[in-house]
Amino acid sequence: MQPTGSPPRPFISFLTDFGPDSAAAICRGVMLSIARDAQIVDISHSVRKYAVRDGAFLLSLALPWMPVGVHVAVVDPGVGTARRPIGLLTGRGDVLIGPDNGLLVAGAERLGGIREARVLENRAWMLERTSSTFHGRDIFSPVAANLAIGGEFSAVGSLVEPGTLMAIRFPEPSIGEGVLESAIVYVDSFGNLRLAGDSEDLAQAVGELTPGRSFRVEFAATNGHEPIVETVPWARTFGEIPPGRPLLYEDSFGRLGYADNQADVARRLGVGVDRPVTIRPA
Amino acid sequence: MQPTGSPPRPFISFLTDFGPDSAAAICRGVMLSIARDAQIVDISHSVRKYAVRDGAFLLSLALPWMPVGVHVAVVDPGVGTARRPIGLLTGRGDVLIGPDNGLLVAGAERLGGIREARVLENRAWMLERTSSTFHGRDIFSPVAANLAIGGEFSAVGSLVEPGTLMAIRFPEPSIGEGVLESAIVYVDSFGNLRLAGDSEDLAQAVGELTPGRSFRVEFAATNGHEPIVETVPWARTFGEIPPGRPLLYEDSFGRLGYADNQADVARRLGVGVDRPVTIRPA
Amino acid sequence: MQPTGSPPRPFISFLTDFGPDSAAAICRGVMLSIARDAQIVDISHSVRKYAVRDGAFLLSLALPWMPVGVHVAVVDPGVGTARRPIGLLTGRGDVLIGPDNGLLVAGAERLGGIREARVLENRAWMLERTSSTFHGRDIFSPVAANLAIGGEFSAVGSLVEPGTLMAIRFPEPSIGEGVLESAIVYVDSFGNLRLAGDSEDLAQAVGELTPGRSFRVEFAATNGHEPIVETVPWARTFGEIPPGRPLLYEDSFGRLGYADNQADVARRLGVGVDRPVTIRPA
Repeated sequence: MQPTGSPPRPFISFLTDFGPDSAAAICRGVMLSIARDAQIVDISHSVRKYAVRDGAFLLSLALPWMPVGVHVAVVDPGVGTARRPIGLLTGRGDVLIGPDNGLLVAGAERLGGIREARVLENRAWMLERTSSTFHGRDIFSPVAANLAIGGEFSAVGSLVEPGTLMAIRFPEPSIGEGVLESAIVYVDSFGNLRLAGDSEDLAQAVGELTPGRSFRVEFAATNGHEPIVETVPWARTFGEIPPGRPLLYEDSFGRLGYADNQADVARRLGVGVDRPVTIRPA
Repeated sequence: MQPTGSPPRPFISFLTDFGPDSAAAICRGVMLSIARDAQIVDISHSVRKYAVRDGAFLLSLALPWMPVGVHVAVVDPGVGTARRPIGLLTGRGDVLIGPDNGLLVAGAERLGGIREARVLENRAWMLERTSSTFHGRDIFSPVAANLAIGGEFSAVGSLVEPGTLMAIRFPEPSIGEGVLESAIVYVDSFGNLRLAGDSEDLAQAVGELTPGRSFRVEFAATNGHEPIVETVPWARTFGEIPPGRPLLYEDSFGRLGYADNQADVARRLGVGVDRPVTIRPA
Repeated sequence: MQPTGSPPRPFISFLTDFGPDSAAAICRGVMLSIARDAQIVDISHSVRKYAVRDGAFLLSLALPWMPVGVHVAVVDPGVGTARRPIGLLTGRGDVLIGPDNGLLVAGAERLGGIREARVLENRAWMLERTSSTFHGRDIFSPVAANLAIGGEFSAVGSLVEPGTLMAIRFPEPSIGEGVLESAIVYVDSFGNLRLAGDSEDLAQAVGELTPGRSFRVEFAATNGHEPIVETVPWARTFGEIPPGRPLLYEDSFGRLGYADNQADVARRLGVGVDRPVTIRPA
């Protein structure tokens, strides 16, 4: 349906912890002042404030579903300090723009890996006056928009050795004999728990995952609280489980999930990110 | 102002209970990967989780104000079960896409009624791998985008008998002599109560509605709580009433509303959806 | 990258206190039904309900970063009363559309001032039936969209004497010898306090602002509460301060700010808008 000869509209995705104030809109205004025809998708502006790892997690989940384009992410407690503003060119041809604090790397890995990393230095692509507290507006947005309208990635600034980039460690699953050691990686807005590892990791540890098979799930003791142990079925869909009851399942990204059907299990159990979780056949 | 010969951009509206996580953005990414130039309007992603009726209500309020296009709605506690994914072609020429759980029907009725209903079966219009928990991303979004760029509705799948579609019952008003029996249909984000019936129903029951005319409004006893009775004026606008005081009025959709001016009446009275409400002249 | 001869897409920005219901989306639908190709940026729909001054503040912060266009703002507790619907043509060439309750004036001043003010009277540019409670949908959105597609500003309605427009008073700083009398103008979603005055006002009162210089900040007694006094450093960036500790700084708009690094100072101190703040060297 694209009229012949008309180039596709520049695509920019955008994730921050700016919340419902106008900060994200101000960045949009800056982008659109440069790339007037851009298609901008807000991935989220509700990342937990300053939670770089939550931002990195959400970004890495979302990016594979986006068209090839420029992706701006800003969760940046170190804004104005020595942390570098960077751009990452990916194997798929995207560019990620944001602070060098670990926010971008996991996302770039989902897009074919980092082909080239550069520090953002090109003053001509930034706002004339750059503040020390709002690089989203003054640096990241205008650089991204200049790339979106066709600017060369090599023009953003000097090459950076990818090995020097800040990285973030996510909890990793450990596959034992008859047991999977996992942990809570993220709590989503339904209160569902996203766990370390995927269903193949669990199958490798305990054998075939058949709907209804029963598991003993233990959330480790922490800060003087007792461990929490629940026995739950493996389920293919939420609909197989009565409302309010827990289930262990493969989420829509292939990862292990733990949820109460139509309820908030994180609140019910009082558990949060990084809590170790052990899964065994019941 | 449309340049001659250029077709209008495809229009897609989008309503879910996905909340502020990145799930809605992921769906947008999928849509835009197919319909790169689409104009997507988010009707709401803050529908109360799993509240199919709230979603159906908001959708039916919003759709008449949208351009003709494709409308995707996902409030889907039964995702992955036998409930069908459906498309509804409306009298106005729109297509509604979502689960067959009652979410879409009231909206379609506001757009000229259901001209044709089909089950979504065309695998070529879905993502290659469809999960059992995220049909918004894997089925509804790509099917909608394929329709938006000009795909034929008949290509989505087999015809469905409209009479077999799931429907949702909203509370209905009952017009008596000197009394209107109504109920709370929806509580909006201001805490205002949207009631069953419109101002003509009330006028038929009690005679002319003149600004300042006084009414006795009773919220029925429920779960051992006493009934709540208030005497309030009929008002044409909020501005006629002192801040913090209640009013009975015709909302901007022609429906009966009950509100505190500049305050949250749902919280003050502790009332919610489905509470019966009786309105009589005071 | 703009194809030769194709006009830029009409630009509309949009700020309301409508919250997460579908009201803002309904307005978008109305705008897009008229200006099908418009680029609409939501500045915020989370303005505190009925808080005209908060809306005016956010609008005046955001507008200078937007492309020239039409800007719709609706925080309108007096909807349906005698308050006028107005349009303001700015020195920069923008048009602001909204209620005459002080919401628009500060924003217009940031865009080169009010060149011309008009009352919205052109019924042909409004919806056929205009409610008394939803002028955002029935009047402001369609008038804005008609302007966005090229309608003449003079066609909206009669000229209004700018001196008769409602204005809002923001707290102003007072520069003394060795002291700046300020006040809290706005509390943002991080809980940071935006104060009256900019860093030059403070420098004029107390001399040079060097990173680490210590200040005594007093939040005045109020409603029987004791005054709150804190000694805090001037900081160029949040990163210079340990997490959880307070700082005085120039925010990214050049204004004075008071914050806890990575924490919510408004909640910690229990302070809010209009609280007088006195700043002295410590």
